[in-house]
Amino acid sequence: MGKRIGILTGGGDCPGLNAVIRAAVKVGVERHGFEVFGIEDAFSGLIDLDYRSPNGNRWLTPRDVRDVLGRGGTLLGTSNRNDPFHFVTKDAEGRPVERDVSDLVVEHARAMRLDGLISIGGDGSMAISQRLLEKGLPIVGVPKTIDNDLGATDQTFGFDTAVGIATEALDRLRDTAESHDRVMLLEVMGRDAGFIALHAGMAGGADAILIPEIPYAIEPLVRMVQARAEAGQKYSLIVVSEGAKPLGGDVSALGRKPGEMVRLKGAAARVEAALEGRLDAEVRVTVLGHLQRGGVPSSFDRILASRFGRAAAELCAQDAWGRMVALRDGAIVSIPIADAVARPRRVDPKGDLLEAARALGTVFGDEPA
Amino acid sequence: MGKRIGILTGGGDCPGLNAVIRAAVKVGVERHGFEVFGIEDAFSGLIDLDYRSPNGNRWLTPRDVRDVLGRGGTLLGTSNRNDPFHFVTKDAEGRPVERDVSDLVVEHARAMRLDGLISIGGDGSMAISQRLLEKGLPIVGVPKTIDNDLGATDQTFGFDTAVGIATEALDRLRDTAESHDRVMLLEVMGRDAGFIALHAGMAGGADAILIPEIPYAIEPLVRMVQARAEAGQKYSLIVVSEGAKPLGGDVSALGRKPGEMVRLKGAAARVEAALEGRLDAEVRVTVLGHLQRGGVPSSFDRILASRFGRAAAELCAQDAWGRMVALRDGAIVSIPIADAVARPRRVDPKGDLLEAARALGTVFGDEPA
Amino acid sequence: MGKRIGILTGGGDCPGLNAVIRAAVKVGVERHGFEVFGIEDAFSGLIDLDYRSPNGNRWLTPRDVRDVLGRGGTLLGTSNRNDPFHFVTKDAEGRPVERDVSDLVVEHARAMRLDGLISIGGDGSMAISQRLLEKGLPIVGVPKTIDNDLGATDQTFGFDTAVGIATEALDRLRDTAESHDRVMLLEVMGRDAGFIALHAGMAGGADAILIPEIPYAIEPLVRMVQARAEAGQKYSLIVVSEGAKPLGGDVSALGRKPGEMVRLKGAAARVEAALEGRLDAEVRVTVLGHLQRGGVPSSFDRILASRFGRAAAELCAQDAWGRMVALRDGAIVSIPIADAVARPRRVDPKGDLLEAARALGTVFGDEPA
Amino acid sequence: MGKRIGILTGGGDCPGLNAVIRAAVKVGVERHGFEVFGIEDAFSGLIDLDYRSPNGNRWLTPRDVRDVLGRGGTLLGTSNRNDPFHFVTKDAEGRPVERDVSDLVVEHARAMRLDGLISIGGDGSMAISQRLLEKGLPIVGVPKTIDNDLGATDQTFGFDTAVGIATEALDRLRDTAESHDRVMLLEVMGRDAGFIALHAGMAGGADAILIPEIPYAIEPLVRMVQARAEAGQKYSLIVVSEGAKPLGGDVSALGRKPGEMVRLKGAAARVEAALEGRLDAEVRVTVLGHLQRGGVPSSFDRILASRFGRAAAELCAQDAWGRMVALRDGAIVSIPIADAVARPRRVDPKGDLLEAARALGTVFGDEPA
Repeated sequence: MGKRIGILTGGGDCPGLNAVIRAAVKVGVERHGFEVFGIEDAFSGLIDLDYRSPNGNRWLTPRDVRDVLGRGGTLLGTSNRNDPFHFVTKDAEGRPVERDVSDLVVEHARAMRLDGLISIGGDGSMAISQRLLEKGLPIVGVPKTIDNDLGATDQTFGFDTAVGIATEALDRLRDTAESHDRVMLLEVMGRDAGFIALHAGMAGGADAILIPEIPYAIEPLVRMVQARAEAGQKYSLIVVSEGAKPLGGDVSALGRKPGEMVRLKGAAARVEAALEGRLDAEVRVTVLGHLQRGGVPSSFDRILASRFGRAAAELCAQDAWGRMVALRDGAIVSIPIADAVARPRRVDPKGDLLEAARALGTVFGDEPA
Repeated sequence: MGKRIGILTGGGDCPGLNAVIRAAVKVGVERHGFEVFGIEDAFSGLIDLDYRSPNGNRWLTPRDVRDVLGRGGTLLGTSNRNDPFHFVTKDAEGRPVERDVSDLVVEHARAMRLDGLISIGGDGSMAISQRLLEKGLPIVGVPKTIDNDLGATDQTFGFDTAVGIATEALDRLRDTAESHDRVMLLEVMGRDAGFIALHAGMAGGADAILIPEIPYAIEPLVRMVQARAEAGQKYSLIVVSEGAKPLGGDVSALGRKPGEMVRLKGAAARVEAALEGRLDAEVRVTVLGHLQRGGVPSSFDRILASRFGRAAAELCAQDAWGRMVALRDGAIVSIPIADAVARPRRVDPKGDLLEAARALGTVFGDEPA
Repeated sequence: MGKRIGILTGGGDCPGLNAVIRAAVKVGVERHGFEVFGIEDAFSGLIDLDYRSPNGNRWLTPRDVRDVLGRGGTLLGTSNRNDPFHFVTKDAEGRPVERDVSDLVVEHARAMRLDGLISIGGDGSMAISQRLLEKGLPIVGVPKTIDNDLGATDQTFGFDTAVGIATEALDRLRDTAESHDRVMLLEVMGRDAGFIALHAGMAGGADAILIPEIPYAIEPLVRMVQARAEAGQKYSLIVVSEGAKPLGGDVSALGRKPGEMVRLKGAAARVEAALEGRLDAEVRVTVLGHLQRGGVPSSFDRILASRFGRAAAELCAQDAWGRMVALRDGAIVSIPIADAVARPRRVDPKGDLLEAARALGTVFGDEPA
Repeated sequence: MGKRIGILTGGGDCPGLNAVIRAAVKVGVERHGFEVFGIEDAFSGLIDLDYRSPNGNRWLTPRDVRDVLGRGGTLLGTSNRNDPFHFVTKDAEGRPVERDVSDLVVEHARAMRLDGLISIGGDGSMAISQRLLEKGLPIVGVPKTIDNDLGATDQTFGFDTAVGIATEALDRLRDTAESHDRVMLLEVMGRDAGFIALHAGMAGGADAILIPEIPYAIEPLVRMVQARAEAGQKYSLIVVSEGAKPLGGDVSALGRKPGEMVRLKGAAARVEAALEGRLDAEVRVTVLGHLQRGGVPSSFDRILASRFGRAAAELCAQDAWGRMVALRDGAIVSIPIADAVARPRRVDPKGDLLEAARALGTVFGDEPA
């Protein structure tokens, strides 16, 4: 008789999640005779076994995942706010109160007679998984971060799709920027790592790229816009990571008037305000936001996610609990979940890719005058 | 010897502008032996004959428009701020000063020995064109409004593309909204007319659509979100025209605290603030903005724009100055420019399309409790 | 207690079918309290009530159609070969034998206690529906033809999506044609009517368009290719309807050698063979085929299909049996099914659209030397 | 004074070619002060210095490549038939005659005072480049193969775009296959290597994938289709490389009647014929053909192509003649052109990726009964 394996998706939505689930279910059921139990909304479905969201906790068969390979979102639902170690619920008077319900999660998994759990998620979900593992819950991890900021794997699924969406946005903005002689700013995801901005900026031919790894000054941007205008190109495209930071970290220094910046939300809005005071040209901001997370996953992401999902099922079959799948030099390997959490990935300011972008004339805000 | 015809594009960028230019140039040159002169950045190129933008004023041949049918933007550039009757320039001390340079425009057109002008633009450009016409400048008009808010023509190019982009955005947001149990608001173009919101909302299966023509209350939206959640669909999609207005026009009434709303920019941000106080669910806003104007025009828009451009060239050949091309019952006709300016188009709250949306369960914010 | 309504889709796949089903189910169930019964694979599910295809005959609720608005295909399945009046089955020895099972269909509908049937289909399905109607089965029709060749309605859903796919194909072929100095032929759908070819050809800037309504000679095509090459454009794009026919209907006249053509399948392959004998340039054929039928429906098609589906449900509520929904001058109307079958729609060779294409330089194969 | 560098593109069209040219021109001119000379239609422009295609041989400035990053095709034109060592021209009577014009090419490059040449092309072009190099023409190579079949580099540009197009085609075919209970065959590029079929097949969820590296029998395909039908999925999707070969290489063995197959063009048509005799289901073939080569390059391909183009310019600056750029473990390196030609890349039938596809249930035609 086969194992009983639970599967859940945690953290922000990411193109390819359904492909992971599909592969794990198909390989688990068809190759290893598993029963696979779908847990709703990350750990919510393990905190409350009667948990109901659109579909509720439920058994998954290959038939249930038949049509999901190319679909965005996650058929299991997800959540950013259900850490069992810091679970927020309400007390008798309706006030929020934080509790540790991790024992309940382990207990519920046993009550369900789960032999193990496939946990698909980012930094946060992996840290939670590691702690649950230490409490005795057998877990296999699948890394998920649209920002590609995990050092343990060469690439994560979702990133390629997000870069494609941001590049398409740049293609569109270029048309309008050129027609109107404008400076267009595009804010993309990337709180701590600038990979989406760097890749989309290179693919979309951006004139400047601002990333968290390289604090920027405004003057190099001003000079770039002016130099282009003098050469007859009165428009410029600038990609801004949501985590891009001005040199010295002093955002108010960017404002036209003291104190003005505190009200501005968003990295691109700050750059806009700073540029508008220094340029004749019209400056406009577009924030891609949630548009980067949904939609049809790219071929690359579907394949990588399928390989991850299949490998996770194989790890379960081998009782390789505590391990996370990863891509290394083109092959799927597994590493301890504990190691994965420890190593963030960042853009290398001296790296080959960034050097190529500079050689092509892209400005990063750290250029000497 | 053929006529000399100037051509310019005015107002906001719009998918299909290049297709109009291409058709006018091809038909003008190849069928009627015209010389066609491309004028840069709307009327800028007629205010200053030496005007230089990326390409500058220049003669256009079929070769110059060979590859532009499927490209966004306008190869002639455009501008929203160069009304010759209220032209803003700077005085000796660099202070902005407004002048009427319309006589200069007429004079320059004569100096160029232009027999006529094809003016492609929206409300504003057509009003300017009418006044220049009255000053003796022979003009043929081509209507352009991405909002489709011109009563004189059944449809304008660019609208179909914008609706397609907004629908695709809804498709993406749906994946994430569903995965995260969120209420997602999408703000689209439409200052005075809600056509983009209505069409994209229907095509994208939005649960509510807020348009300028129907002032909304918050309560019907709250009830809709709650009814869906009770039926097991914990997410909702709401499309908001940038010109959507709350009932009574009192935006502060929407805020959780008095006076809070004054700082909020954007129609969707106001709805978000009002909903957040009344719902448990997470609410998120996405503003499509400039992404709606650029990009590859749809087949429909390329064809309509080509027909308009061709018809404009034919009107020039016939010396039918003062007329604007339009689509009526599937055929291309011409009407006086003066008439076109007078008749805006608005969504009919009792119309067939809106009734269909209501029948499908879409909420517009005016539903009785 | 509400009515019991059956619903089925017949004939070739067409983008928007799911949107019709969704609207009919939602409006039927939520507005009129219908029970809606989904019948599998066109009339197959009424010939055999135990019929099983992927999902089988089944009751449909709004939940079942929740996610299908933007999906290609039809969730009910379809078939081109299940005419109840000429139903092909096998005799005891396994030989095909044709029977009239129409009485069985009427009897089954009664056994199911269906108050009526929504039949979504093309010419063939509407003719069958009319005959079943005459046998006493209450039917409401929804027209479906991707070719847009039905005179009773100004437009059908699916057409806009097919044109978009064909236009995108032309955009791609143009890149390669231009890089390689080739003549590229693209064969698109359209057995009797050339609308897809005409619209995609105009939107994609084709140099020649061959349609069933205008028999073509090869010489105008040869002259066009040569004139372009002399003017420095060594490539040409030609769109060919699958039903395009040479002048005189003599396909062998097109071959380089007598009799050669009989073996060639496809309208574009015949043109290729004829051109290759007369041109220096390389000629290449691409047949779009089934790629035109699947995929995400366009915004226009989703809206039109939704309006049709809603209107069909309303007709059922009004016992308006024997009528088919249609689009006329922007409004949804209903007409007798009998009338619909009688009037095909064809491209008007003297029409405004075709004249515009000619004015832009497009060749149709009937140009005098 | 800077170097004079020629640049040309050879072989089949491939998405990303323009991005290579753009990067080489920008980096060459702006960083190294090169004069860059664009040579038309592969070696044609060096065989005949007055060569004229759409644009003709010409100097290229950053302005000329401003807008090409996201465009398909190659602005320099290309050709598959201009090998200078076997150049086909016509004799006095118009009969084709082959000559070696390689000395002319070297001589012309000297007459142009070119310091070196950037040759972008596939196997064939690299072999020619190596021989010209041996004749004293300084050349730097950039690998180009849409099939990704070059062992010297981990990936080539164009491949990701082609896989994306093929995956989108599968997504479309799935809708129709499922609606009609059909077996759909999609033929994709890949004469000697099955990478496009394998990747698109995995991303599109194909039920079988036939590649040149694994000769196939028909029986496993027949069993797969029948097993799916028995499990309620009456449709199947099969991807076929153009170079897929039946076991034993005996194509006639596939036909329903002896000798029938000889007339069938294409790998997928052969599979169709063989399947039709053995299955009840309808079988349909779609050949993607030229649609895979054109169109907007993906983000990945634009970035890789830009890095290649930049690296080629750097090699020229370093006088590193005889070397070709390549991608190895994420970094851009250079290797001798001679080595590159020698090592083809093939799908590893025991590799990780193929194993994953098998684990997911995909059939390759070599399964034991």
